[in-house]
Amino acid sequence: METMYFEVGKIVYEGPDSKNLLSYKFYNPEEEVLGKKMKEWFKFAVAYWHTFNSRGQDPFGDPTFNRPWFHNDPVSTSFAKIDALFEFCEKTGIEYFTFHDRDLAPEGLSLKESNKILDKVVEKLKEYMKTSNIKLLWGTANLFSHPRYAQGAATSPNPDVFAYAAGQVKKMLDVTKELGGLGYVLWGGREGYDNLLLTDSVLEEKLMARFLQLVVEYKKQIKFEGVLMIEPKPKEPTKHQYDFDASTVLHFLRKYGLFDEFKLNIEANHATLAGHTFAHELRVARINGKLGSIDANRGDLLLGWDTDQFPTDVYETTLAMYEVIENGGLDCGLNFDAKVRRASTDPEDLIYAHVSSMDAFALGLRLAARLREEIKPLVEERYAEYYSREIGTKILNGRVSMQELSDYAENLKDITLRSLKQELIEMIMNNIMFTTR
Amino acid sequence: METMYFEVGKIVYEGPDSKNLLSYKFYNPEEEVLGKKMKEWFKFAVAYWHTFNSRGQDPFGDPTFNRPWFHNDPVSTSFAKIDALFEFCEKTGIEYFTFHDRDLAPEGLSLKESNKILDKVVEKLKEYMKTSNIKLLWGTANLFSHPRYAQGAATSPNPDVFAYAAGQVKKMLDVTKELGGLGYVLWGGREGYDNLLLTDSVLEEKLMARFLQLVVEYKKQIKFEGVLMIEPKPKEPTKHQYDFDASTVLHFLRKYGLFDEFKLNIEANHATLAGHTFAHELRVARINGKLGSIDANRGDLLLGWDTDQFPTDVYETTLAMYEVIENGGLDCGLNFDAKVRRASTDPEDLIYAHVSSMDAFALGLRLAARLREEIKPLVEERYAEYYSREIGTKILNGRVSMQELSDYAENLKDITLRSLKQELIEMIMNNIMFTTR
Amino acid sequence: METMYFEVGKIVYEGPDSKNLLSYKFYNPEEEVLGKKMKEWFKFAVAYWHTFNSRGQDPFGDPTFNRPWFHNDPVSTSFAKIDALFEFCEKTGIEYFTFHDRDLAPEGLSLKESNKILDKVVEKLKEYMKTSNIKLLWGTANLFSHPRYAQGAATSPNPDVFAYAAGQVKKMLDVTKELGGLGYVLWGGREGYDNLLLTDSVLEEKLMARFLQLVVEYKKQIKFEGVLMIEPKPKEPTKHQYDFDASTVLHFLRKYGLFDEFKLNIEANHATLAGHTFAHELRVARINGKLGSIDANRGDLLLGWDTDQFPTDVYETTLAMYEVIENGGLDCGLNFDAKVRRASTDPEDLIYAHVSSMDAFALGLRLAARLREEIKPLVEERYAEYYSREIGTKILNGRVSMQELSDYAENLKDITLRSLKQELIEMIMNNIMFTTR
Amino acid sequence: METMYFEVGKIVYEGPDSKNLLSYKFYNPEEEVLGKKMKEWFKFAVAYWHTFNSRGQDPFGDPTFNRPWFHNDPVSTSFAKIDALFEFCEKTGIEYFTFHDRDLAPEGLSLKESNKILDKVVEKLKEYMKTSNIKLLWGTANLFSHPRYAQGAATSPNPDVFAYAAGQVKKMLDVTKELGGLGYVLWGGREGYDNLLLTDSVLEEKLMARFLQLVVEYKKQIKFEGVLMIEPKPKEPTKHQYDFDASTVLHFLRKYGLFDEFKLNIEANHATLAGHTFAHELRVARINGKLGSIDANRGDLLLGWDTDQFPTDVYETTLAMYEVIENGGLDCGLNFDAKVRRASTDPEDLIYAHVSSMDAFALGLRLAARLREEIKPLVEERYAEYYSREIGTKILNGRVSMQELSDYAENLKDITLRSLKQELIEMIMNNIMFTTR
Ligand SMILES: [Co+2]
Ligand SMILES: [Co+2]
Ligand SMILES: [Co+2]
Ligand SMILES: [Co+2]
Ligand SMILES: [Co+2]
Ligand SMILES: [Co+2]
Ligand SMILES: [Co+2]
Ligand SMILES: [Co+2]
Repeated sequence: METMYFEVGKIVYEGPDSKNLLSYKFYNPEEEVLGKKMKEWFKFAVAYWHTFNSRGQDPFGDPTFNRPWFHNDPVSTSFAKIDALFEFCEKTGIEYFTFHDRDLAPEGLSLKESNKILDKVVEKLKEYMKTSNIKLLWGTANLFSHPRYAQGAATSPNPDVFAYAAGQVKKMLDVTKELGGLGYVLWGGREGYDNLLLTDSVLEEKLMARFLQLVVEYKKQIKFEGVLMIEPKPKEPTKHQYDFDASTVLHFLRKYGLFDEFKLNIEANHATLAGHTFAHELRVARINGKLGSIDANRGDLLLGWDTDQFPTDVYETTLAMYEVIENGGLDCGLNFDAKVRRASTDPEDLIYAHVSSMDAFALGLRLAARLREEIKPLVEERYAEYYSREIGTKILNGRVSMQELSDYAENLKDITLRSLKQELIEMIMNNIMFTTR
Repeated sequence: METMYFEVGKIVYEGPDSKNLLSYKFYNPEEEVLGKKMKEWFKFAVAYWHTFNSRGQDPFGDPTFNRPWFHNDPVSTSFAKIDALFEFCEKTGIEYFTFHDRDLAPEGLSLKESNKILDKVVEKLKEYMKTSNIKLLWGTANLFSHPRYAQGAATSPNPDVFAYAAGQVKKMLDVTKELGGLGYVLWGGREGYDNLLLTDSVLEEKLMARFLQLVVEYKKQIKFEGVLMIEPKPKEPTKHQYDFDASTVLHFLRKYGLFDEFKLNIEANHATLAGHTFAHELRVARINGKLGSIDANRGDLLLGWDTDQFPTDVYETTLAMYEVIENGGLDCGLNFDAKVRRASTDPEDLIYAHVSSMDAFALGLRLAARLREEIKPLVEERYAEYYSREIGTKILNGRVSMQELSDYAENLKDITLRSLKQELIEMIMNNIMFTTR
Repeated sequence: METMYFEVGKIVYEGPDSKNLLSYKFYNPEEEVLGKKMKEWFKFAVAYWHTFNSRGQDPFGDPTFNRPWFHNDPVSTSFAKIDALFEFCEKTGIEYFTFHDRDLAPEGLSLKESNKILDKVVEKLKEYMKTSNIKLLWGTANLFSHPRYAQGAATSPNPDVFAYAAGQVKKMLDVTKELGGLGYVLWGGREGYDNLLLTDSVLEEKLMARFLQLVVEYKKQIKFEGVLMIEPKPKEPTKHQYDFDASTVLHFLRKYGLFDEFKLNIEANHATLAGHTFAHELRVARINGKLGSIDANRGDLLLGWDTDQFPTDVYETTLAMYEVIENGGLDCGLNFDAKVRRASTDPEDLIYAHVSSMDAFALGLRLAARLREEIKPLVEERYAEYYSREIGTKILNGRVSMQELSDYAENLKDITLRSLKQELIEMIMNNIMFTTR
Repeated sequence: METMYFEVGKIVYEGPDSKNLLSYKFYNPEEEVLGKKMKEWFKFAVAYWHTFNSRGQDPFGDPTFNRPWFHNDPVSTSFAKIDALFEFCEKTGIEYFTFHDRDLAPEGLSLKESNKILDKVVEKLKEYMKTSNIKLLWGTANLFSHPRYAQGAATSPNPDVFAYAAGQVKKMLDVTKELGGLGYVLWGGREGYDNLLLTDSVLEEKLMARFLQLVVEYKKQIKFEGVLMIEPKPKEPTKHQYDFDASTVLHFLRKYGLFDEFKLNIEANHATLAGHTFAHELRVARINGKLGSIDANRGDLLLGWDTDQFPTDVYETTLAMYEVIENGGLDCGLNFDAKVRRASTDPEDLIYAHVSSMDAFALGLRLAARLREEIKPLVEERYAEYYSREIGTKILNGRVSMQELSDYAENLKDITLRSLKQELIEMIMNNIMFTTR
């Protein structure tokens, strides 16, 4: 493999005994776990924006990343980034990528011009894709960076902005279909409010629903077979975003008759910003049949913004994979919506970060499979009286009235609960993680 | 009026020029604001639990309140608390109260016995109510204090607990109807989880829905005409509660076909624990037609637990009343789910706290009425292009496709947004509050 | 007055009855409050960075502010910003400004070149200042934006960075002296860590102390008479900043023998990010004799980053001014380290924001003066037993041993605390704010 | 060993291959790590309050723990708890315990009476201790539960409360000395404020310092050789506590000339409530020579109160032990200030919880020892230029002035920072934890 940008060789599975840092200890793509190849469980994707576009700026600091694929001319940079993408994927073994329209190609002076520039870059991408096994996981449109979106995209008070956003999404649905993407994600980073008093919530909600209906109609029109997904996030950049968390999005979808058309893309750091654990949001999505994909990363719970760190905490990856296993996998894979720290300035740091996180998820999958064996019987036992006792089945089957329940309860004495034994579960978890592998 | 417990006279409206601390400066019950008497806008209620029951303990400290209505014998205490309630209401002019079953009367050795004790106390309450204008705002059942509820009430893994909870709610629906309550509130403080791994979320959700269905059926059976309400809270006492916030509850209700049967009781401190402003939660409830009542209090945003402080911040009461005005009022009033600080040990502190908060809400109403005059035109203007321009109306009316929007957008240049002018709004708000009253 | 950039006239005091939005309702610069002119209590300053430099970008969005003083050539922009500054100050009546070296003039290819560019701009600034009453409140150096500071300035692992930072601060001390600044502020936004494991805390602390010693020595060498100040902030941009809060900085100063040389510049939003109220941090600074100046702004406690909003909450400005009054004023004034929202795009919004905040502080001063009259006697009464009773004075004067205290306490019974009456205080606060002005 | 209360046998080290849940996988007390026996590294202690006293109540719920050692008579309960303590310690191999005066014995009607009751129970404790190797780690006095402390102990506005608190501490210093305790801890849970306006901060701080001076004097008088320690906590039960975090306490100690007399007891959950990681607070204590002991537990960063969970996250225990190793160990050991969840109702859950946490710390010690080998060279390399280059050594040794630094910096170009490589560190951490043990 040719080295243009990353001074490392191809990274392969060498197992937990390898001393080679640049090897997979746990991610063995072709190995089967619970009847499915590891690479199928994950469909790992690299995110264009963080890995190839970011220059390392933060709200108080200028760019720190001088990537060798950055050129003065934005179109040359666009092409060089494609080279970087393919070298990166071949070396790490990551088979998927994700991108926003504006990640791939710079914006022109009009939407028409932007679309033309995009087409040119997509053309090259397609060529490369033909001769490799690198695939598009999902596409998305950037409806938040440009100042036109400062007061929302679909929910902007200016209908031209709604139209512009629709134009961008239309184009990206076309492009995603053309590139064979498995899904399409909408993140409403500017759909929300900064000032509630100045916000016509009824109108904005109606506009947001109208926008999603247009997406659904167009998707059907062009026969795009991928999964439409919404990515919840509670706040940042706005004070409050409408897609606050999984439940809020599901409420919105049910209210506007869109429930059957969308799944969710759950991001770990967005979960914690909303006051939930990552596993909680995966659970909510899963039990509603809506867990479509994962934006894998990690927040810092002592910081109040979206740090998008690489996810290497194996407790968290294990609990996440527990939900993924219960979900039977992910339609639209696992995308690393994560960035190296601003002071991690070597291109190779991008490699370390992805390899380390893929291994953390692969280990999480292995551990979750074992955890499941131990935990599921305990959970079943915990609720057994709902199935073994008459009062339980009557309640479950709806064959009992409040009066009957009251009569039954009136003479009950001494209801004794079995211990929840949370500390035992924590012991079992650590034993699985640290003692018998 | 006889003084048994509170060393103050009757508190009446004296207007903003009065120097008498124990007078209302803004709350003038019979005065009309926007076509409705102030007392009708609010239906202020005192909460039994905080005001008459609490002994001032906290997680690190023992009781500090030696209320003169506390006796050694719990039943005598029950009766004395009724005296305290009526003296309190007569002196403050508060016309409503709220209570849990166990606030009113102590628990017996069985549900049957508890119900009997409750009946005895309710009997006295009814007598008193006959000869006064003190009314029940809403009733509720305590499904969280007793150890049987340590793992949930409706969502307990033990079906006996489900039955017991149903028995308590049945009794309290009966009592609430008997006392003429305007509504009935369910707060699911133990409906949630401490450990997600050990939780069968599908089953627990089903049980919770089943419980609510039973409540609806029984309510109809006994022809209780009041409003059923759910009170969201995200966490505390459990790590995660299912009724996380307004949107989450509305999703649940829609999912289980219960949407038409329930409204919401929005508590300020629960809003902030969920990461929302109080006004936000009121807004969500309102635009979904679900704002039934308010649990008025205030949290401390630098503290992570439910401090239930008395609500005296006039910015917050104004923004809350803005939503209440837009809602056309509240079916089920405004209940002070608030407690004096543990070191505020005089019974009279309860009076100061309520009077001060009622005045803060009354002033909030007056200010919101004026704020509305200034803000509503600005909001209309903000979104005017959706009504005045063809592209706007086409979007709103659903008479435009994605393709058309894209065609329209392709040649747009230079979309210019009007300034949001948030700082001007903040200036207007302060001017209304501080300059021209 | 000539209008180049701001389409408003001169804003003057018209009192609370004025209907003119662009007038001061409470800020009457020459009026005396508690023996000092209002303008002396405040010494209001405009911050170059937010008001003249910012382009409105945020972590997810591109610039939204097209200020008329922005030119393609950075040096022309530098000069135009000076025009904007003076027009702004003359129209608002703000008499002070603050700036970082890099706010004023662009950076060159070397420190030497940067200093030359800076000199040229400072020259023009000085000329303007001669013919006006606009003064420098304090200067500071930007040791955080340039990528060289990505791992710290004084605490960088690279000694060249330490030297570069020292060079910048030296120059800005010279410039601040030359312009007659009342103080000099150090904000250590990159002095902290992102990864504790990789951090040699002992060395970094030593370097930080060494840097401050150099500042003190140089200040004395050039006979700069202004006040040196440190501005605490707990986090952002780094995970943890060494100047976490007032107490942490004071500990550092005491530890390294620097206590007498520095005061603090307290920022409201930094206080809340550290888990404190604004008033708390002012109090800590004050009682240690270290309250030098204020960075006035406001955070959003439901958001976890530094929102730097304009401070218009009169509760907060009142409590802040309470501390300022107790402090006898501020050596180095009150600087608006605040920015208009990204969607507030008109230059005039900058005017509204400052006027509104100045009025909020002016009203806060008036209210605090009255609050003090009511509260101070209550506080004295609260602690009176420490002065009126023998046991109290013995404790205070250190004339009692543990054994004596134990003997005294052994037979004490029934210690009764007087009610704290917090709810009464809240009532008094609202009465002062809303009833009798 | 006799079984009275805990239905388990003696728990011993069986190593990581054991399948026996009730064995230590990593804690091998006599094994040496880095030249010190494991039991010496830890000196694990059980906390009386959580393990033997707690009844499982929470702010919304009544007791759930019916411990077999609870009797109706409080004095009998006191004696039974001693039996429970010794059975618990013998079975787990924990050699230390900690307690508050009021944990051990109930309070009497006066301090004199309380002291007598305490003496009686201490007598029995001493007897038991003679015939076992169970030792006292540290003692402390409960200055927060009784209503007399509702407005503070040393900082109460009532001097009788100061005296009473002094009496309690005197007695507990006597008892701690008598029982051979290694230290004495002061936790100022009520030393703080709920309302800043009503607080005379100068006086309260002076009183707090006076109290500590009395403690120091008395300690010397009775020749107690143990370590005096202060335990920081930022808030809860009060809004703000004076011992906010390690830095704040150290500032206080330096300010009042008490720095040499006290060390710190760092609690994990208190660290996170203050916005810090556990490792951060350990680091601050360590580099100031003040890390005396650890209150081991774990918070839930999505919850805002002190959950005091058992510490089983091995990432956290590893980072904590890293600091302990650097500290050369702990004078006063590691106390489990942790409680089983309220629904974990079996006495054996207490065993699981402690065993699991001890193993997590033992594994943390082993991992930290290895992590240190890998990380320390990287840290040294990171700062190497401060030792290898002239500019570095001159800065460190204070042999360079600001002018010289400026001259040096003026012509510097292109300072290039080496990558921080945080992602590589995270990879190394996981490799150490999961691949090669
Ligand atoms: Co994402
Ligand atoms: Co993110
Ligand atoms: Co409530
Ligand atoms: Co509450
Ligand atoms: Co600042
Ligand atoms: Co700030
Ligand atoms: Co502790
Ligand atoms: Co704790």
